[in-house]
Amino acid sequence: MNKRMVFHMIGQIIKLEAAVLLLPTVVSLIYKEECLWSFLITIAVALIVGFALTLISRPRNHVIFSKEGFVIVALSWLSLAAIGALPFFLSGEIPSYIDAFFETVSGLTTTGASILTDVESLSHGLLFWRSFTHWIGGMGVLVLIMAIVPSVSGRNMHVLRAEMPGPVVGKLMPRIRDTAKILYIIYLVMTAVQIILLWCGDMNLFGSIVHAFGTAGTGGFGIMSNSIAGYSPYSQWVITIFMLLFGINFNLYYLILIRHIRDALKSSELWVYLGIVAAACIAIVINISHLYDSFGETLRTAVFQVSSIITTTGYSTTDFNAWPQLSKGILLLLMFIGGCAGSTAGGLKISRIQLLWGTVKRDLRRLIHPRSVGVIKMDGKRLDEPAIHGTSAYFIIYFALFALGFLLLSFEPFGFETNFSAMAACFNNVGPGFGLVGPIGSYAAYSPFSKLVLSAAMLFGRLEIYPLLFVLIPSTWTKK
Amino acid sequence: MNKRMVFHMIGQIIKLEAAVLLLPTVVSLIYKEECLWSFLITIAVALIVGFALTLISRPRNHVIFSKEGFVIVALSWLSLAAIGALPFFLSGEIPSYIDAFFETVSGLTTTGASILTDVESLSHGLLFWRSFTHWIGGMGVLVLIMAIVPSVSGRNMHVLRAEMPGPVVGKLMPRIRDTAKILYIIYLVMTAVQIILLWCGDMNLFGSIVHAFGTAGTGGFGIMSNSIAGYSPYSQWVITIFMLLFGINFNLYYLILIRHIRDALKSSELWVYLGIVAAACIAIVINISHLYDSFGETLRTAVFQVSSIITTTGYSTTDFNAWPQLSKGILLLLMFIGGCAGSTAGGLKISRIQLLWGTVKRDLRRLIHPRSVGVIKMDGKRLDEPAIHGTSAYFIIYFALFALGFLLLSFEPFGFETNFSAMAACFNNVGPGFGLVGPIGSYAAYSPFSKLVLSAAMLFGRLEIYPLLFVLIPSTWTKK
Repeated sequence: MNKRMVFHMIGQIIKLEAAVLLLPTVVSLIYKEECLWSFLITIAVALIVGFALTLISRPRNHVIFSKEGFVIVALSWLSLAAIGALPFFLSGEIPSYIDAFFETVSGLTTTGASILTDVESLSHGLLFWRSFTHWIGGMGVLVLIMAIVPSVSGRNMHVLRAEMPGPVVGKLMPRIRDTAKILYIIYLVMTAVQIILLWCGDMNLFGSIVHAFGTAGTGGFGIMSNSIAGYSPYSQWVITIFMLLFGINFNLYYLILIRHIRDALKSSELWVYLGIVAAACIAIVINISHLYDSFGETLRTAVFQVSSIITTTGYSTTDFNAWPQLSKGILLLLMFIGGCAGSTAGGLKISRIQLLWGTVKRDLRRLIHPRSVGVIKMDGKRLDEPAIHGTSAYFIIYFALFALGFLLLSFEPFGFETNFSAMAACFNNVGPGFGLVGPIGSYAAYSPFSKLVLSAAMLFGRLEIYPLLFVLIPSTWTKK
Repeated sequence: MNKRMVFHMIGQIIKLEAAVLLLPTVVSLIYKEECLWSFLITIAVALIVGFALTLISRPRNHVIFSKEGFVIVALSWLSLAAIGALPFFLSGEIPSYIDAFFETVSGLTTTGASILTDVESLSHGLLFWRSFTHWIGGMGVLVLIMAIVPSVSGRNMHVLRAEMPGPVVGKLMPRIRDTAKILYIIYLVMTAVQIILLWCGDMNLFGSIVHAFGTAGTGGFGIMSNSIAGYSPYSQWVITIFMLLFGINFNLYYLILIRHIRDALKSSELWVYLGIVAAACIAIVINISHLYDSFGETLRTAVFQVSSIITTTGYSTTDFNAWPQLSKGILLLLMFIGGCAGSTAGGLKISRIQLLWGTVKRDLRRLIHPRSVGVIKMDGKRLDEPAIHGTSAYFIIYFALFALGFLLLSFEPFGFETNFSAMAACFNNVGPGFGLVGPIGSYAAYSPFSKLVLSAAMLFGRLEIYPLLFVLIPSTWTKK
């Protein structure tokens, strides 16, 4: 293990966080808010820690392997959250550090689960920071540093792979740095377009920026206790469309950018994704039609909620916890499915579900014809066996961790629905669940222990398990 | 597809059911009950249908492949349940045929889920039949026919494999017929010992027989609304020990029988099974100690319930639905784990969990060392790749079906806990769940549609998915 390189990278990331914290600092300056000081202190802390780490651990060689990649990603995210929680805590707006940590992890992992019961009382600077963590966490902070800092973008495909969601990560360009740059440019432009469109509606500039961050990262933090319910149908539709767009594999946008539109439309993942959204919307519209006044409202509410949950954003325009059991069951299922690989969405990811389905079909064929060759194809390309087995293993470990997390939450006196959906909503980076943690509830009632369990679940979910798992396996640290 | 052979075998099975129905007929004769007539009519129906099927479809050749094996098993079980439900329905003791079908499926699949709200009002003949279905279904009805009817025990390894639970089915003896015979002899002797031990306690002969059937098949049907709660601690301990014994792979008993005791004790599945039982008992004893008067009572209640749930029997000595959330969470997890492969228990099975764990470990190794060979061993033997991939595929399809079943139950107005645990308890052949379907509740409130969904879940669970799945896949019937 190249420990010097690991800590060097983490130092870089923490320095980046100091830079990124300048934005909310400016916001708190504009609004002349007291939280300004908490940002300045945090920036100082980040700079000291960051420079200390990079100076102490000057790497002798820059070679890193997949193990280092995992460890760098896991520890970077933990450090980011630990330091990113300081402004909430130091300003006193979130008095408990564990609560502040939970809220920051929830932001970075684009979950959107909150311990706040009165979000309107937060200052603008902290509201901005809270939503900005969504935006950074959505595309990935290591992808960002590779895009902008030339010195760390060497042979770091392992890092990119460890941070990017989905079963298979493709490089768009021969050089990793160019791939990272293009991803962030697409991300930035789409966010900017959404800000403008929202600003044209009934949101002010601050609201437009914050909600665009929450949509782009498929996070779900807002600035009102009732989420998006208070905004106009126009704003709700804009957010719906952008949630769906940010749930699509960014490779497709790149293909469109280089005018390979036909190739982009050939993606089976895209059509499966849109098919699931359409089917879920139809079922829910029929199931909830008696609850709303007009067909238009029913349709808008259903499409909004389906898009919000399948992309694991977590915004709401209604208390979907009060919906009939069938609609709730569909939403619960969508939480596990998630968006497309290579998007900012969480969950298992559509392409992983397709791959698992292919594995099942192959096994059924083999049961009848034991000597059949059994090739699994996706979009015409034959998948290699390690990717297939890796996806099965991921599915197994995913449910094992889910069961463990659910069991650890069972120390709470809350009911089955609350605990199960809390685990599902955090592990899949959705945010709101059902019962006490429903769209009009919060995670405030959980004990500090459970909040740490749920924070771990969010990180495991966003980083797709392996990075954190390797940090926890002793042999990672002992073996050469 | 050798359709003649398929229907010939089903005919044989139905004739066997006619023979088996003689036992409850005798019971109803002894107790001079009216339900005698419903048994006689059912026997007549079974004989007519059975002989008609065997006569019409005289097979030209006796060769069957795995596809035929699956279809024979699936259709046999469906026919057995359809005819086995008649006594309940014809006697009027269960007025709805769907309810009677649910109860019979629950019996045959050794689930023990009941729609009866007042089990004490059932006649002795029907109580006997209800529990006897557990005993037949536990070891398997096709295993039984192979053991006793020489003509059908030819090359039917495929049938044995399709009916026996677990990822790998071993032949104990070179000839299938001898394997089937030995399994049934062990089963019979163990049941007989349990009957005698129970009879020595506070149960009468009828109660001893019925409860031994329920234990041997890991079923869970009893004769009292409060299950085993009303019996003495002695009886409860006898049932506890036998539940645990019937949850162990029968191959181990065979090894003990031929004095290979050391080989039997080398089974890692056995030790994992006992380890999980011990760990669950300790956790629950600590968690529920405040609810009971003495340590002895706490221990007895905890060990009984853990044994009952992990072996998917479903007997209860207390309303475990009222236990703290943590204990309920542990029980829910045990439902999914289940007993050992090659036992009469349901669930995923311990050895399958071990195999999945091996798959995960191998994948983690491969992530770090992409060229590692990656052999998965169990009990010192190297497992072949098809068995490994088959187990992963099983796990995937298991959860896909679980999700589907849960969604179909969501048409009910019941809460999340009731529906989820109902699906878990039926799919894993446990019986009671939590909420409305808890140990003091019943499945009576479900709609006929949901009862059919749950019946399907029980059959899918007991037959380990594939047999029924192949019956439902159109290509099974069209392709040559």
